[in-house]
Amino acid sequence: MLRPSASGRGTSIVKERAIIEALRHLPLHPGARGLEDDAAVLEFGGETLVITHDMLLEGTHYRPDADPADIAWKLVATNLSDLAAKGAEPIGVILGHQIGEDDTAFFEGLADVLQHYNVSLLGGDTVSREGLRAHGLTAIGRATHVPVPARSGALPGDGLWLVGEVGAAMLGFEALRDATEGDTAAYCRPMARVAEGLALAPLAHAMMDVSDGLLLDAFRMAEASKCSLAINSAAVPVADPARLMECLTWGDDYALLAALPAECEPPVQAALIGRVEPLGFAPLFLDGEPIANPQGLGYSH
Amino acid sequence: MLRPSASGRGTSIVKERAIIEALRHLPLHPGARGLEDDAAVLEFGGETLVITHDMLLEGTHYRPDADPADIAWKLVATNLSDLAAKGAEPIGVILGHQIGEDDTAFFEGLADVLQHYNVSLLGGDTVSREGLRAHGLTAIGRATHVPVPARSGALPGDGLWLVGEVGAAMLGFEALRDATEGDTAAYCRPMARVAEGLALAPLAHAMMDVSDGLLLDAFRMAEASKCSLAINSAAVPVADPARLMECLTWGDDYALLAALPAECEPPVQAALIGRVEPLGFAPLFLDGEPIANPQGLGYSH
Repeated sequence: MLRPSASGRGTSIVKERAIIEALRHLPLHPGARGLEDDAAVLEFGGETLVITHDMLLEGTHYRPDADPADIAWKLVATNLSDLAAKGAEPIGVILGHQIGEDDTAFFEGLADVLQHYNVSLLGGDTVSREGLRAHGLTAIGRATHVPVPARSGALPGDGLWLVGEVGAAMLGFEALRDATEGDTAAYCRPMARVAEGLALAPLAHAMMDVSDGLLLDAFRMAEASKCSLAINSAAVPVADPARLMECLTWGDDYALLAALPAECEPPVQAALIGRVEPLGFAPLFLDGEPIANPQGLGYSH
Repeated sequence: MLRPSASGRGTSIVKERAIIEALRHLPLHPGARGLEDDAAVLEFGGETLVITHDMLLEGTHYRPDADPADIAWKLVATNLSDLAAKGAEPIGVILGHQIGEDDTAFFEGLADVLQHYNVSLLGGDTVSREGLRAHGLTAIGRATHVPVPARSGALPGDGLWLVGEVGAAMLGFEALRDATEGDTAAYCRPMARVAEGLALAPLAHAMMDVSDGLLLDAFRMAEASKCSLAINSAAVPVADPARLMECLTWGDDYALLAALPAECEPPVQAALIGRVEPLGFAPLFLDGEPIANPQGLGYSH
């Protein structure tokens, strides 16, 4: 959900922060978690509902020549990744659909991703306009563990773990853009790490998905948790070690970032990339160097 | 939610129906109600959740010179109207927000409507792009009566009741367009009939909101219920009796249409505008004349 930079390509982080500040002055539901989490968390009946919504805009989030099947896949997978980061089991999705010239491929991609994740369509809205398209998706899930891990729960002493690698989406994007050999799947058909999120939720002090760049998202977890995160770049699984900083700052990989108690070994494949420390003079330290400003840490191409 | 014509101004009803047919071939959740209701209805944690999503597109649903505060109001009110039609008590909304040049007025309108309906913000997504804007809103509510009234429950013998009048939004739209004297509130700041929906839900065999034109929406209730609806035009509260057919086919009024058992007197102000009959050779009869084709019955200006 509210992820200023990812969504605001072309808009400065400063402006995006101002927008989120304005939203925080609205009547907020406690389940909104102060608008600083991946999803809303709502007690309902005797259970806990997790809900997220993301929009995808043609020209901002995908190129006009993108395969519509991939767009549909990404629309669903990115929302399911938000649910995964909260340890929620997906129930269904609601589609905001701007009708295109020919939506056959879009619906094929939608069927693929729904079947892959065993998720069903709960409803939607169809709208129509000429020009660049807009898509919206709301995903609804059931929390499998309460308290539902927040971005804000990291504690000094925790180990910082990454599920998945970063940079693969960047390489996929470039292969697609330049029509070169190369695996485009990580960019075109990202995977939501639902099973891993479910396995980590009972253990994690904090968890979020890494959609906007590892450093930017780690910065956010640090700020939300009022701790500092110290990352050891050599420990981060990256798709191209020769382009380390790019891999650490590119988005769209949908890895999971989790803070686990020091003694805890994750039950899924994950890399120990750093640790949580008491709040120092910067929210983030990369190989011991402080990073005090989030500008430039994330997805802004 | 899925309301082909309302949303598809500029797209033929034939094409919109094809899109909804394509959506019906996706894995559908039982709560989707076959994609023929105002909202999804989901058992969760011992209670029943009602969820709806609508998009508003600049250029399609509002003019580029519209007051952003009114756009925000309408975005929320139209979704709450869907909840009202299911007798659901609103809990919260999730916003899909495309950042504008200056969103101050938009957020003021959003604060107004949330406060008016005592609804809070659960979260959202901010996105950015040049050009015409797109907005999305997901509204979540708690059913106050089960079974939740569907569009499909009308039974022969039921009385057909309308809460609210139709045509006022048309007059408001025209006053705004032509900059003439006239009340624009019905168009700019429509009211969701939440209290009336809650009061009718335990009684109604079928209920829906009238967003796309009374005749078109009645046609849909008839088709969903596999009955015919017979409407007496003289009994319909219209904003301008001299323009009866326009009032019956214009949308955006957000009245409620309910089928109640013959002996039932509604506990809220409502007009008895017709009756439900066994399925005849057309889904809709207006003053005894059969209407077999929905084209032209609803919002297509």
